[in-house]
Amino acid sequence: MKTISSKDNQIVKEAASLKEKKYRDALGLYLIEGPNLVRELMDFGGRPRFIFLKAGAGEEAQTIARKAEKLTAVYELSAEAFAKVSSDSSPQGIIAAAEKDVLESDEFFRRAGDGNVLVLDRLQDPGNVGTLLRSAEAFGFAGAVLVKGCADPYQTKCVRAAAGSILRFPMLFCDSGKEAAKVLQGAGKRLYAACMEGEVSLYDAELERNTAVIIGNEGNGVSEELISEAERLYIPMYGATESLNAAIAGTIIMYEAKRQNKQ
Amino acid sequence: MKTISSKDNQIVKEAASLKEKKYRDALGLYLIEGPNLVRELMDFGGRPRFIFLKAGAGEEAQTIARKAEKLTAVYELSAEAFAKVSSDSSPQGIIAAAEKDVLESDEFFRRAGDGNVLVLDRLQDPGNVGTLLRSAEAFGFAGAVLVKGCADPYQTKCVRAAAGSILRFPMLFCDSGKEAAKVLQGAGKRLYAACMEGEVSLYDAELERNTAVIIGNEGNGVSEELISEAERLYIPMYGATESLNAAIAGTIIMYEAKRQNKQ
Repeated sequence: MKTISSKDNQIVKEAASLKEKKYRDALGLYLIEGPNLVRELMDFGGRPRFIFLKAGAGEEAQTIARKAEKLTAVYELSAEAFAKVSSDSSPQGIIAAAEKDVLESDEFFRRAGDGNVLVLDRLQDPGNVGTLLRSAEAFGFAGAVLVKGCADPYQTKCVRAAAGSILRFPMLFCDSGKEAAKVLQGAGKRLYAACMEGEVSLYDAELERNTAVIIGNEGNGVSEELISEAERLYIPMYGATESLNAAIAGTIIMYEAKRQNKQ
Repeated sequence: MKTISSKDNQIVKEAASLKEKKYRDALGLYLIEGPNLVRELMDFGGRPRFIFLKAGAGEEAQTIARKAEKLTAVYELSAEAFAKVSSDSSPQGIIAAAEKDVLESDEFFRRAGDGNVLVLDRLQDPGNVGTLLRSAEAFGFAGAVLVKGCADPYQTKCVRAAAGSILRFPMLFCDSGKEAAKVLQGAGKRLYAACMEGEVSLYDAELERNTAVIIGNEGNGVSEELISEAERLYIPMYGATESLNAAIAGTIIMYEAKRQNKQ
């Protein structure tokens, strides 16, 4: 295991640059932190580009790092150098650079088969994006389409909220709602857009398979481009309560889809 | 409308003290901020103890303050004095002191009738407590029982997350899980505790009416005192995903209860 003590080391600087989207995009890498995520990545067959272990890290982080030495480059970093790369307020001693698994449209829909797909239409809150990816996996959705304007799912807050789902869950990136509608319809998906005032109640929607559930921007809802191609779906609720948070509304719809499917 | 310019004014100091639980408890008051909440309070027939309007506040806040003058004392505060009371990073120009509506057990269950009740067992995150109160109202629950150890629902973050629900939703405070179980059983409620690994699937639970849905602490789940008296309920999910966030899990269960009830 090589050791790095200076925070100005070139490898440390490159790793720290992955906190910014433009470098994540250019290098095709993103950072994951903590023993749980790094272990999940390797269990899932992923090969980290490199791993940083903090000097004096706990037993769990040490064990994973030693195991990873067979797969990839592992560096032991001084506390100062490690802090430069970490985004965690109480770092858990291990960071890995994971490779983004960027799918083309054909491959995405081939993997999705007749499964349901989540569509995130310019969701800006990274916690919401991460939570929805996690819920989508939990409720058996086959993948997620992210329309340009969404928080980058590979940023730290998103990765944390998505937990292990970020490592496994198929994602497709679209440049516009129009493009998303086109590829979804091309793949035979029935489009439902979550709205405060919809035309179809969640009780009556047919969500067993081959649907695309669209969750809109926190402030503005689903864009016209997508709404015009979709059935407007609402969650029956009482009283003066305003709309639910986007992550909660989306998760309820995905729960209902799984309930109908009951596999 | 009286005006107050000094942040050391006695009324301003008393109002600012309501940011602390001990003063909220002693005075039976809590603060609500922004035109929407203050309007909802008055629409619901509530009579604020006093209202603070920020000098130069927007039209909406001004209108509400003028209307409230018939009901209660309204003060126009300097920006400095207003900032001392506000908890908002971008204050919306109006704050009211609302009276807590503290219910005794008999009154709580009389109002609840055969409705479902949400039980919050030492939930520590104020955002989760607020979100769950809001969801409970939205999905037709009749009230919430809060076991000692919960975040105070009258604190700012909770009030904000609960939105208008905090003004209307019946709440009962219990000193222990044991006491909560006793009063719930006394009122004929069937107890379901949300667990990661339960014995009853949410698909099979009977949630139409007269149930108590217990959501546990974020880290430790439902306490032994309550679990021992309840059926353990789980949400069917796939894969390696860990448990859902408490607010999301609770909201899904309440959605399902409303779906079964379909009123």
